Amino acid sequence: MKPQLKPVRPVTAEEYDEQSEDLRPRLLAAHAKLRTANSSVLIHLGGVDGAGKGAVVRLINDWLDPRGVTTVAFDLATDDEQRRPPMWRYWQALPARGRIGLFFGSWYRDIVVERVSGDLKRKIFERRMDRINTLERMLVAENTLVLKLWLHIGKDEVRHRLEHLEENPELHWRWLPKKLAPLEFYRASKEVSEELLARTNTRHAPWHMVDASENRMRNLAVGRLLLETLEAALRLKSPSQGAKPAPIPKTLPKRRLAAVDLAPKLDDDWYERRLERNQHRLADLSWKLADSRRSLLCVFEGWDGAGKGGAIRRLVGSLDPRLFSVTSYSAPTDEERAHHYLWRFWRHLQGPGRIAIFDRSHYGRVLVERVEGFAAETQWKRAYAEINDFEQQLVESKVVICKFWLHISPEEQLRRFKKREEVPFKRYKITAEDWRNRDKWNAHEAAVEDMLQRTHTESAPWTVVPANDKNFARIEVLKTVVRELEKVLE
Amino acid sequence: MKPQLKPVRPVTAEEYDEQSEDLRPRLLAAHAKLRTANSSVLIHLGGVDGAGKGAVVRLINDWLDPRGVTTVAFDLATDDEQRRPPMWRYWQALPARGRIGLFFGSWYRDIVVERVSGDLKRKIFERRMDRINTLERMLVAENTLVLKLWLHIGKDEVRHRLEHLEENPELHWRWLPKKLAPLEFYRASKEVSEELLARTNTRHAPWHMVDASENRMRNLAVGRLLLETLEAALRLKSPSQGAKPAPIPKTLPKRRLAAVDLAPKLDDDWYERRLERNQHRLADLSWKLADSRRSLLCVFEGWDGAGKGGAIRRLVGSLDPRLFSVTSYSAPTDEERAHHYLWRFWRHLQGPGRIAIFDRSHYGRVLVERVEGFAAETQWKRAYAEINDFEQQLVESKVVICKFWLHISPEEQLRRFKKREEVPFKRYKITAEDWRNRDKWNAHEAAVEDMLQRTHTESAPWTVVPANDKNFARIEVLKTVVRELEKVLE
Repeated sequence: MKPQLKPVRPVTAEEYDEQSEDLRPRLLAAHAKLRTANSSVLIHLGGVDGAGKGAVVRLINDWLDPRGVTTVAFDLATDDEQRRPPMWRYWQALPARGRIGLFFGSWYRDIVVERVSGDLKRKIFERRMDRINTLERMLVAENTLVLKLWLHIGKDEVRHRLEHLEENPELHWRWLPKKLAPLEFYRASKEVSEELLARTNTRHAPWHMVDASENRMRNLAVGRLLLETLEAALRLKSPSQGAKPAPIPKTLPKRRLAAVDLAPKLDDDWYERRLERNQHRLADLSWKLADSRRSLLCVFEGWDGAGKGGAIRRLVGSLDPRLFSVTSYSAPTDEERAHHYLWRFWRHLQGPGRIAIFDRSHYGRVLVERVEGFAAETQWKRAYAEINDFEQQLVESKVVICKFWLHISPEEQLRRFKKREEVPFKRYKITAEDWRNRDKWNAHEAAVEDMLQRTHTESAPWTVVPANDKNFARIEVLKTVVRELEKVLE
Repeated sequence: MKPQLKPVRPVTAEEYDEQSEDLRPRLLAAHAKLRTANSSVLIHLGGVDGAGKGAVVRLINDWLDPRGVTTVAFDLATDDEQRRPPMWRYWQALPARGRIGLFFGSWYRDIVVERVSGDLKRKIFERRMDRINTLERMLVAENTLVLKLWLHIGKDEVRHRLEHLEENPELHWRWLPKKLAPLEFYRASKEVSEELLARTNTRHAPWHMVDASENRMRNLAVGRLLLETLEAALRLKSPSQGAKPAPIPKTLPKRRLAAVDLAPKLDDDWYERRLERNQHRLADLSWKLADSRRSLLCVFEGWDGAGKGGAIRRLVGSLDPRLFSVTSYSAPTDEERAHHYLWRFWRHLQGPGRIAIFDRSHYGRVLVERVEGFAAETQWKRAYAEINDFEQQLVESKVVICKFWLHISPEEQLRRFKKREEVPFKRYKITAEDWRNRDKWNAHEAAVEDMLQRTHTESAPWTVVPANDKNFARIEVLKTVVRELEKVLE
């Protein structure tokens, strides 16, 4: 739905002083409270060139406590950024809890520039708009309110200001694609912008058209919208409030895991030979990958004691350390906890040509966080779609994804736990928590089944690896990665 | 001093099993304790190509808990990295407290490659080596132990292995400059490497030459050195232990501050005219800066209430938000606290063509941290040289630095505090802490005097700005920045 411009009445200088003096202490008070609140605010500032975006950036920093505001101005994407998912650079800059992020030239700018330049086909243009809606809905659901301001000025005023810009020595149009002058760009982008505004004018994150033809009017309108948003942010409760550990089901809908044949074994001789052959093959492929624009993400999940660490070590055994990184995810740091749960996974993605390995991953949301009740039911139920969308974005920017569930039987787990307790240098690997998790085997199994069913997609399928025999599991992992890389590199 | 190779005796397979079984649980136990310790370990892994560095990376990850180790493999610097201070990318990757950083192809590799390529003049080569020593001493002083391993193999063995490498399809020499083959690079770099090893073989961070001609011997040697280092790291006390707030001096050695004439004023008409002229000039210069390879860092320090925020707002008043960022430094986050105190300032530097503004800065170490006793006397005394070195590195990579101390009298401060308490929307700006700081005026003044004296360098001088009159102070700041940019851009 096309966002509407609300009619406003011009204000006199006296009215302005009076109204802004009323507004400013309330803004500051609300902003001060936000600092310790469980929410954050993301402001998008859009509008034609010359509409006064720079002035509004300064206004917001002036009327709020600038220490709590991070203004992020995005330039056109660099070559390196262009090889990442389009949302990658924005994820890095999302505001932490208690803070305001002011985005200037953000995902709304990118898409217009690319569409006008003809780099964006109709279908992809539409998908990108839908993805913006998805991301904003996700952020709002996790207490980041999204305030979208579009500075509007009338046609004649636009022409007047843009002509002035063109005569201006400060070269504002350097940011425009193909060195279009502001007026040309405006003409070329008008229709695109209108479609974008209409399609991203959603219930959870509507556009606010601000009449920017006159400064006083504009400032008061921005100030009031800001105050409304801050006050709404302060009213929000933590989305995980009232979360409870998932009940432990007595009977399980046996599905994928029960069907896994845990019998296969590889004796040591066979294992050594296949290990060497596959590692050698993978090393070759990793150099080919390095020369390509693709990258690889391997996700490792599995029961405690299933041998994730050992499988990862064999996987990277022949790789040049410059080509891969292993990130182990356990409890998040303070900074990570203050962000959306997917933030820390976006943070550790690797650039083109490289291999990222996640030892535990974003699937924690629908596994341990579900079972232990760190995430509320609405949160983890929502997460399946969020995760699929995250992975889809990676796939679209040429990331090959291999996801492994290392599966063992409860009996095998018990045997391994006991063995670990006996071997001095393995004792550190077993904790009271592992024993507790074991007691919740059924609850975990239900979570794993749901995960396998709901996040097994064509472009990012799960491989369930029978891991009662370590040799067999390690070779399975290697073979799978080799096969997936061969598909795209050869 | 040239590091010496310790003679070791080859071990049999049985001896190896026995000795590694003794070593591994002790390594794991020490590593587990490190997690909650107040120290970290940085490992540098060097040696000729083919000496087995990759194998040692895997060994370390295998013998320790890999979740506590971050292996960082540095490629040749990208164009963007080359325009930063050489140490910039390494600072981002330094291990946090409780962790082990394993650097592979690090500052020791860069310098050899650049020297062999002829990009590094003798004088700069020497300066870079000294800078490595400075940085390592700094890290050790703040509880990051530095373990430097050089894998050594005899001449014939080197030739043999490098010839093998060259026949090897895995193209290891792709990392070498100017596409030298490994053997050529080895010959060209031998002398450089030897000088580098000798000059960076320091007491606080000595090189350990590991005989890598045989794997068992090598593994045990690496394991033992690792254990020694971990155990030493566990014995370290916090460097700020026993720190006390600085005593409040009764009489002050009146120096620079007392000589500041606080009388100058600018009436509003003059102010408006000069503000506009200087802002316009600065906007022009900022675009020229954007086209250059230089960047600008403005550091703002000053008494509470001296008007830092207002001066910063006027400074950026005419700048395109894409060209600058303002970072306000208050209490560090958890992640920041777990790193060297300079880490968070390295983190927020801007790339070439851009302007970074620090609202409070790395000088907190010698100001509030000294006065409040957050840093021990040895720490803040050491910091003057550390800060000068930090700034010198920036200057060498074409950063223009403007440092401002905004100076007001205690009477003016009192007047402003009282006024703030009266104006509703300024009330948030004044806290009990501000009043406490005021009581320690003399202690702060002594710290400021020392700072001005010890960190006022030719390439990064302090500007003490008389700020009793806000108009005057704001114009002084703008004029200074304009003047410094004109010097280098015109």
